[in-house]
Amino acid sequence: MKPSHIEHLGIAVKSLEQAIPFFETLLGTKCYSIEEVADQKVRTAFLMCGQTKIELLEPTSEESTIAKFMEKNGGRGGVHHVAFDVTEQGAQAALDEAAGLGIQLIDKAPRRGAEGLNIGFLHPKSTFGVLTELCENPNKK
Amino acid sequence: MKPSHIEHLGIAVKSLEQAIPFFETLLGTKCYSIEEVADQKVRTAFLMCGQTKIELLEPTSEESTIAKFMEKNGGRGGVHHVAFDVTEQGAQAALDEAAGLGIQLIDKAPRRGAEGLNIGFLHPKSTFGVLTELCENPNKK
Repeated sequence: MKPSHIEHLGIAVKSLEQAIPFFETLLGTKCYSIEEVADQKVRTAFLMCGQTKIELLEPTSEESTIAKFMEKNGGRGGVHHVAFDVTEQGAQAALDEAAGLGIQLIDKAPRRGAEGLNIGFLHPKSTFGVLTELCENPNKK
Repeated sequence: MKPSHIEHLGIAVKSLEQAIPFFETLLGTKCYSIEEVADQKVRTAFLMCGQTKIELLEPTSEESTIAKFMEKNGGRGGVHHVAFDVTEQGAQAALDEAAGLGIQLIDKAPRRGAEGLNIGFLHPKSTFGVLTELCENPNKK
């Protein structure tokens, strides 16, 4: 694999309304998009920092993986996942390469993520505890 | 604040020897530096991904904050901190600004980190659970 850059960092938060003003101040930039991703049971908010987006993730249900992550984490938020841009290789090819290397996949085929990206996750058991997302931006191809 | 980019992601690992080959494969690039930071009781290894470094952190003592982080995390590694480049503003000015905003600081004044950067940490209690580092690269000024 040869990701071009870190596409985004996913950060779990209890409340977008509380978190957005803080991250706007920290990053000196405005949140440019809020989106609900129904199948992941989250609302997301995006801010840019250089090449990388900060994706704030608020659970919309107790069944959300983000809610479960915070529960395990003593009720606190924090960095939930790291997403690498593999647009050049393509998400399916990158997932296939990972599988061939013996990395356990959460997604065998890409699915649609926030901002219309094609995304797939690698299992943190295979990635030294870092929940790793591979992203392809179909608009850049 | 207006960091220019994410300078690095700090990832706690049990063993650099095990983790480096994995991250070299994931990122399609070679580790370019290994450094011991004695006062933090860690050995660090660096790889580039776009603008951002991946800093692998191996504890050299059970007293290391990295060892304690992994202990709390069920013995697993994972993303330990996120570091933002504030070279333009300067680390001291950025820390002072954070303090003025009511953010709890770990470091009131910058100290010397890996790669000769001037660094200071913000407390995760004030930063939505994300241990946040502010970095100034004196060689870029």
